[in-house]
Amino acid sequence: MIVAKNKEDIKKVITKWKVDGLKVGFVPTMGFFHDGHLSLMKESLKRADKTIVSIFVNPTQFGPNEDFDSYPRDTERDLRLAEKVGVDAVFIPDVEDMYPGNSKTWVIVEDLSKNLCGRSRPGHFRGVATVVTKLFNIIQPDIAIFGQKDFQQLQIIRQMVKDLDFPIEIVGAPIYREFDGLAMSSRNTYLSKEERKSAICLYKSLKIAQNLVESGKIKKAKELQETIRRTIDGFPFTKIDYIFIGDPESLEPVDDLKKPLLVALAVYLGKTRLIDNIVID
Amino acid sequence: MIVAKNKEDIKKVITKWKVDGLKVGFVPTMGFFHDGHLSLMKESLKRADKTIVSIFVNPTQFGPNEDFDSYPRDTERDLRLAEKVGVDAVFIPDVEDMYPGNSKTWVIVEDLSKNLCGRSRPGHFRGVATVVTKLFNIIQPDIAIFGQKDFQQLQIIRQMVKDLDFPIEIVGAPIYREFDGLAMSSRNTYLSKEERKSAICLYKSLKIAQNLVESGKIKKAKELQETIRRTIDGFPFTKIDYIFIGDPESLEPVDDLKKPLLVALAVYLGKTRLIDNIVID
Repeated sequence: MIVAKNKEDIKKVITKWKVDGLKVGFVPTMGFFHDGHLSLMKESLKRADKTIVSIFVNPTQFGPNEDFDSYPRDTERDLRLAEKVGVDAVFIPDVEDMYPGNSKTWVIVEDLSKNLCGRSRPGHFRGVATVVTKLFNIIQPDIAIFGQKDFQQLQIIRQMVKDLDFPIEIVGAPIYREFDGLAMSSRNTYLSKEERKSAICLYKSLKIAQNLVESGKIKKAKELQETIRRTIDGFPFTKIDYIFIGDPESLEPVDDLKKPLLVALAVYLGKTRLIDNIVID
Repeated sequence: MIVAKNKEDIKKVITKWKVDGLKVGFVPTMGFFHDGHLSLMKESLKRADKTIVSIFVNPTQFGPNEDFDSYPRDTERDLRLAEKVGVDAVFIPDVEDMYPGNSKTWVIVEDLSKNLCGRSRPGHFRGVATVVTKLFNIIQPDIAIFGQKDFQQLQIIRQMVKDLDFPIEIVGAPIYREFDGLAMSSRNTYLSKEERKSAICLYKSLKIAQNLVESGKIKKAKELQETIRRTIDGFPFTKIDYIFIGDPESLEPVDDLKKPLLVALAVYLGKTRLIDNIVID
């Protein structure tokens, strides 16, 4: 497995692959791999001739009071796991390589960035769209894989790729879950034992919501939101950031439930903010 | 010469060139060619194996009270001229091909967009940066040529390419001028006979400024600005939009004159807004 620590090195690798006419798959990550990440890599390995994984904890998508500094990192372990899965190259730039000098350019995706996590994390999706644009320009992949756990991110990237004419196919891969349903996340490592127990509240309330919608027992978003709120509030150490019920395409909230329906949650467990979602189709 | 009227057609052409390992040069234009445009094409033909010219009057870079509808167009003449110069392909998409559906994504370049034309034309450079990003992603050129008449545009594109890691070399080509010094522009065709005579005031005041700065007779930007203002005001049908005196890199105004110095002008001749500039080095 090739490990490239700067733009120039990874470009050399990719140029060779391109000359050979190989299809390049790309999985952008912030590292600290769990099985969710590995599933994205496997998806790319299935679909492309060569797979590149980037590991970059991008400072511009973190707010001033967020966890950029404490975000978990373990590059050696990540490299072992990526190699085991069969990844062809890992790109691990440092911040100076990605942002040399004074960057003035932002890619912004309007409308889709305003609700859900965009509301709680101002500037977050501007940072994401910009760094993904940079990575796309460096790697020039044919396909790129994103997890559906970050549903809003996936929709924003899809919109951006369409609007800016990137010649890249975007693939959304299903959420990977722990034995009890908790969506896998690098941030799960922040949880205390007790918080970890309560963290099941996200998946649990999504499944309750799914049943209520599919059975037609609830017709109004407000009512569904209230049920979810009560469910989550029943678990200790929880604080709801948002409960979003709306259209999975436009990411606009709805009043009357209709399929397809996106139910998306952000919940604090102690100081750790977790997200999860379900699309009811 | 290949004429491609939509994205898919031009992509097929470029894919073939890329497979053959050819270097692709790109000249984005809004058409209605004059010798300035042709000089950009010649620059590309000199530097690249294949040259693509795009003709697209981009609606998103025009303000609501600007001349999008009346902007001069003559595709047949443009195609003849491009072919004569030796251009390999012309890309002429229509608005629906470039902006299908509801586009939500903008590329913005902060700081550099705020002065000069950015002040008079809010949203203009956002439109430029976004459409150039789209064109870069469609054409995937190795080099792209921009005229120095639109000095601010050139600096913004350079910054964007650096910040977003586009693998594209940006070349700035010198201003092409009429016999009397008027910078060539498609908008010159708007001018009445009398306005055309007065239009020389831009070049004339830039040359006066150059002499005053190079001889050291003037040390303060305010004084230089006043001299330029008086010169332009001496011509009939003129109305000054801005006189910018500042740093050609940061596009920030200066108080004390120092080289390199950018002097940039926007002046209305009747209803027609013309720009010109000089870098005193």
